[in-house]
Amino acid sequence: MNLAVSGAAADVASARPLALSLGDPAGVGPELAAEAWARREEEGLPAFFACGGAELLAEAARRRGLDVPIVPITDCAEAAEVFASGIPVLAGADALYRPGEPDEQGARFAIASLELASALAVNGQAGAIVTGPIAKSHLARYGFTQPGQTEFVADASGTPRDDAVMMLAGPSLRTVPLTVHTALSAVPELLTVDLIARRVRVVAAWLERDFGIERPRIAITGLNPHAGEDGRMGTEEQRVIAPAIALLQQEGLAVTGPHPADALFAPRERDAYDVAVCMYHDQALIPIKTLDFDQGVNVTLGLPIVRTSPDHGTAFGIAGSGRASAGATIAAIHLAGQCAARRAARLGAG
Amino acid sequence: MNLAVSGAAADVASARPLALSLGDPAGVGPELAAEAWARREEEGLPAFFACGGAELLAEAARRRGLDVPIVPITDCAEAAEVFASGIPVLAGADALYRPGEPDEQGARFAIASLELASALAVNGQAGAIVTGPIAKSHLARYGFTQPGQTEFVADASGTPRDDAVMMLAGPSLRTVPLTVHTALSAVPELLTVDLIARRVRVVAAWLERDFGIERPRIAITGLNPHAGEDGRMGTEEQRVIAPAIALLQQEGLAVTGPHPADALFAPRERDAYDVAVCMYHDQALIPIKTLDFDQGVNVTLGLPIVRTSPDHGTAFGIAGSGRASAGATIAAIHLAGQCAARRAARLGAG
Repeated sequence: MNLAVSGAAADVASARPLALSLGDPAGVGPELAAEAWARREEEGLPAFFACGGAELLAEAARRRGLDVPIVPITDCAEAAEVFASGIPVLAGADALYRPGEPDEQGARFAIASLELASALAVNGQAGAIVTGPIAKSHLARYGFTQPGQTEFVADASGTPRDDAVMMLAGPSLRTVPLTVHTALSAVPELLTVDLIARRVRVVAAWLERDFGIERPRIAITGLNPHAGEDGRMGTEEQRVIAPAIALLQQEGLAVTGPHPADALFAPRERDAYDVAVCMYHDQALIPIKTLDFDQGVNVTLGLPIVRTSPDHGTAFGIAGSGRASAGATIAAIHLAGQCAARRAARLGAG
Repeated sequence: MNLAVSGAAADVASARPLALSLGDPAGVGPELAAEAWARREEEGLPAFFACGGAELLAEAARRRGLDVPIVPITDCAEAAEVFASGIPVLAGADALYRPGEPDEQGARFAIASLELASALAVNGQAGAIVTGPIAKSHLARYGFTQPGQTEFVADASGTPRDDAVMMLAGPSLRTVPLTVHTALSAVPELLTVDLIARRVRVVAAWLERDFGIERPRIAITGLNPHAGEDGRMGTEEQRVIAPAIALLQQEGLAVTGPHPADALFAPRERDAYDVAVCMYHDQALIPIKTLDFDQGVNVTLGLPIVRTSPDHGTAFGIAGSGRASAGATIAAIHLAGQCAARRAARLGAG
């Protein structure tokens, strides 16, 4: 599996800085943003800026024992210039730092930070957005109407939600869950030839566009044990998944399957594909978190903007303790920078 | 996670040899049995013998390039004595070696080898059985009426099938699928408080009895993404899984959950339990095969006999090519020997 973003473009920093939304101020988002800045040199991170939250960030950094100067900016074009001297924070909403205690002010801040970051990416001022973790059910009480941030950025960028595809990317593996936050019992009826074909087309196009993988090799799982074993344990493979694969192959995509999901993530199998497209949440998330727990990145494919996110939640229980790993946040910033640089290179070449 | 069988008994070889059934002669079972014998010294394997198949084994070994003398025996008590000089083969059925070409003679041999091994374990002549891989749908045409070998050994040992519990054990992890070879759409209705409680009691008792783990720590997964998130994505956790956990806790078992399955197999989570009990096949098998592909062992808990098996199929496609790894077969022999030794020590002490 080729997990790096290939080609020369990956080494060229995007001219435009990355916009970070800080997530819920009661969670680990702010402290991990601060730590990412503190490790910018050793990690070779591209310039980024926080969308609001100057006071919040200062306190989160202090509580984590980090010396992170806050540099207020009023235009994101200033971010690259000041990035070496401190974390640039674009003027915007702010909130009290209350780790582990989500409240209304914090929820409203999280929404405002996400809205600002998305708007800057949509209007082209930011090269990409990296979204910090939110608690959806908490934010829903204060005007956050989308099921999650993936749907939020789809709406904000004018993309049909069906075309905004979640992909998890770790150092060992990339996976896509075709259905996500839905009861397992509802999964079989949600799977249709149209859904699979539509989303796999997005996966293929975006892996080529943003990851520089020509004709990506896409392995598609079955739904049932042993991919149904010729219909003996479920018929979704025969009725839905295999026909979708045949259709996509006719269109010229390098698609294989349906593969028994249990064996697909074994080390030697992983060399045979660039991404595994899975039928439901845990089928895609178990292998990623088992292998790459602290470095998993959630990427939204299918958008006109680049959006990544660390693949973990708010972790209210350990916020403020200094125990949360910044690995996934750093990986999300890296990946956003690489995808943005590739897009910039394509636009420059085009 | 404590994955070794603990205590002094683990170091004492069982007095009784282990019986190997060779599986389908068209698959990789025979060649892997031969290779296990060839590596007996470097791997420190306890004495075992094959149940029939002298000609078959000789040819499978030759084709794999192994120098493995065949030593015919007529009583399994002879196995330990001759084990150093060659692979002991108890008089029984035989078959032609036809790798990749399953046929009726081979199917009948596979059934006879399994029947012989089981009978010897049930009557106490063998310390344990290690079963080679079969193709269930192929054998079903020739009188194999059980859904799989787990049910076969349950029947052969007079154990109710509901009490014969499949566990997968690898170097990194142990998992139990509560439902196994069934369509995913049927899983939610199969899960009941009674099923979960009954099987978890078996898991707890057998980990103590055969693995020497006192009061084993048992982590139970949810069925739905994020274990249902308080009913927002499925209610099986609230209606079925949590009540089963409460019941088991009242009985004094060290049970936790329902845990979100995606995070449960991350490295630092694995230290918190001795076994993960999962709701369906892929939830249990994906993490094992992702982490321990070539060393996964299938153990049947709940039986009066010890039974293990390499956690892979017949691999008809690579049989005879020498490419199949003997890692899981060797691990299955090791584990069977350890469990048998522990039982022997308990009986000796009792």
